[in-house]
Amino acid sequence: MQSFTASGVITLTTDFGHKGPFVATMKGVMLSRAPLTRTIDLTHETSVHFPAEAGFWLKRAYRYFPTGTIHIAVVDPGVGTQRDIIVVLVDGHAFLAPDNGLLAPLAQAKEARVYRVDLERLPAIGVDLSRVSATFHGRDIFAPLGAELAAGRLRPEHVGPEVQSLVPSWVDEPQILEGKVRGVVIAVDNFGNLISNIDQELLRGLRAPKVRAGGHTFPLCRTYGDARPGDYLALINSFGVVEIARAEQSAADSLGLERGAPVVVLDE
Amino acid sequence: MQSFTASGVITLTTDFGHKGPFVATMKGVMLSRAPLTRTIDLTHETSVHFPAEAGFWLKRAYRYFPTGTIHIAVVDPGVGTQRDIIVVLVDGHAFLAPDNGLLAPLAQAKEARVYRVDLERLPAIGVDLSRVSATFHGRDIFAPLGAELAAGRLRPEHVGPEVQSLVPSWVDEPQILEGKVRGVVIAVDNFGNLISNIDQELLRGLRAPKVRAGGHTFPLCRTYGDARPGDYLALINSFGVVEIARAEQSAADSLGLERGAPVVVLDE
Amino acid sequence: MQSFTASGVITLTTDFGHKGPFVATMKGVMLSRAPLTRTIDLTHETSVHFPAEAGFWLKRAYRYFPTGTIHIAVVDPGVGTQRDIIVVLVDGHAFLAPDNGLLAPLAQAKEARVYRVDLERLPAIGVDLSRVSATFHGRDIFAPLGAELAAGRLRPEHVGPEVQSLVPSWVDEPQILEGKVRGVVIAVDNFGNLISNIDQELLRGLRAPKVRAGGHTFPLCRTYGDARPGDYLALINSFGVVEIARAEQSAADSLGLERGAPVVVLDE
Repeated sequence: MQSFTASGVITLTTDFGHKGPFVATMKGVMLSRAPLTRTIDLTHETSVHFPAEAGFWLKRAYRYFPTGTIHIAVVDPGVGTQRDIIVVLVDGHAFLAPDNGLLAPLAQAKEARVYRVDLERLPAIGVDLSRVSATFHGRDIFAPLGAELAAGRLRPEHVGPEVQSLVPSWVDEPQILEGKVRGVVIAVDNFGNLISNIDQELLRGLRAPKVRAGGHTFPLCRTYGDARPGDYLALINSFGVVEIARAEQSAADSLGLERGAPVVVLDE
Repeated sequence: MQSFTASGVITLTTDFGHKGPFVATMKGVMLSRAPLTRTIDLTHETSVHFPAEAGFWLKRAYRYFPTGTIHIAVVDPGVGTQRDIIVVLVDGHAFLAPDNGLLAPLAQAKEARVYRVDLERLPAIGVDLSRVSATFHGRDIFAPLGAELAAGRLRPEHVGPEVQSLVPSWVDEPQILEGKVRGVVIAVDNFGNLISNIDQELLRGLRAPKVRAGGHTFPLCRTYGDARPGDYLALINSFGVVEIARAEQSAADSLGLERGAPVVVLDE
Repeated sequence: MQSFTASGVITLTTDFGHKGPFVATMKGVMLSRAPLTRTIDLTHETSVHFPAEAGFWLKRAYRYFPTGTIHIAVVDPGVGTQRDIIVVLVDGHAFLAPDNGLLAPLAQAKEARVYRVDLERLPAIGVDLSRVSATFHGRDIFAPLGAELAAGRLRPEHVGPEVQSLVPSWVDEPQILEGKVRGVVIAVDNFGNLISNIDQELLRGLRAPKVRAGGHTFPLCRTYGDARPGDYLALINSFGVVEIARAEQSAADSLGLERGAPVVVLDE
């Protein structure tokens, strides 16, 4: 059975950007309830209305935070509709998000436990449902619930019933075929590097992998500096997935590729 | 009489964006003076040189922070000129900003108290006026003053004389006419939602309100998901004002509307 | 001899922007090792792959943080190659960055001490070199090393041997000529102000300095409000360097100038 002991650390992942007081009011609510917790912004610049990027990053980043961290993720195009809210427990961490596919990559783990938040339990932690807005559950539900979990006053298994299935990810897992692996670009970073959803473990069957995208083929290098400035390259990045880069330039801009572009790793 | 007891929490609202060490040096100054305070970035991406957006958000967001919070707002095109600096006390919160209309929405409250900062009192809290730059009072005046207020070492009513009038907002209050309410777009969020300055309270006289902007009329819905992806809608947003949205898309981009665009709510 | 006593404060300067969990995982690593330290984001929006801007800002901003602060700067196009990592001690502050010119402006100070990080000492502080990625030393080396320094468990002079020379800055120091000083635009802020690398001290020999850039000549004013909205001006900004501005507008956009543009200050 998964055990979870709150460390008092919270991470926040949203598609809110940095305009307006959206993230700040979530923090204000959490600080008011749990002043000794510590909140780290994972990112607020995931692609808007696209839960899969948030889940992709959370799956690969959570282990750099203390065990017992609550990871709150709000990419929530269905806010105010009938979609559920879930808590996923994996590897001693807790993840709180809408049930819209965001947490599917984390719930895949064999030992994962998934709980569906029972809204009727919210008043017991001081959340007055008559004051919950229809358009900002981040502030009105996720923040108070996350703060209670982070403070250790509410245990994840008490938010509601355990459930066995949840909404699948909006992005298919990479396909492993004879001599190749097919995935997609799932994120573009500040340097214009194209980050795919192809984990390095999937390349085990390949002897001399090359990476193809946008009609070009890229050699697999160790780091950016292994290519001359301006040259393209591919590499296994620091989060363990295949990435396409252009040394000291933006691969995304130069290749005209963006999120969703197909990426294939194949033997020469 | 307004009472204020510092909670040790500070919020920061500016138009500085995230380039350069502008916000960071404000935080460094505050941390040096009051290491146990906690600072939350409200936003640093309000429209540049436009105090009204900062005041709009502060008025609607402050209540999500603990009573006793100091809210510092620096949108200050007149920095280094003769403009005053004021502290407004409302509802147990303190607001520190240039007297350029930014805090006018907060000072409207009947119970509000307004104090004008007497610069000659600054040396008493360790601010050497000969070292105050002409272009960055955020770091050189607002940060040390805010830190002293947040630490509880300086009481708001001691910053200088109470005053009765201050510079009005750059944006007129919405007009209530026979069967309609006229306002403007005051902010655009990361999703391209157009946020007006029309509070829901102003709609009380309307039986079946619709929203008009940019030559289009939008139905008033409860949440984004009540419209099909791509459809336009209006709603009362989570801060209690009329907002125009396009489900899963950017209303601002699609309609070509931005800050300042007229918005009318009217009975059908 | 430089002395350094850790204050527990860390600043972070990178070119990572705000997409993805890059900054956040650095903070997670630091929080896991040194939970009582406090981290302030200096900026994550320096020009990508351009270490000189980060060093420029650090040199001018560090004094606003408590003595004993660790300033971590990761603008690191050579990550994973043979470039060194250094610690510079100046004025009671410690700076940790790649040896790629970033810290050259700080190491110029007569009393500066420079130490080259000996990677073989990293396992002693718990950094397993076999798990260090080739592309993200910010998370895998700088963060754990900075946390140990900030917590006071590792002294800067113990990271490796003291060295006498380091890689020079990518940007030349301003030239002082007969009756003029030549520099360049090194940063552009959120308002479109063009910030040069010309320190006010260099203007001492000039009687009535004017500023020339992009074929125009600008008067030296005290603050933005000294010009009428829309007028151009130059000033000594709040960090002590020559800046070209346009009152209430963007000088960068209007003049079509950006980083690297020549700036000359001359006597009329």
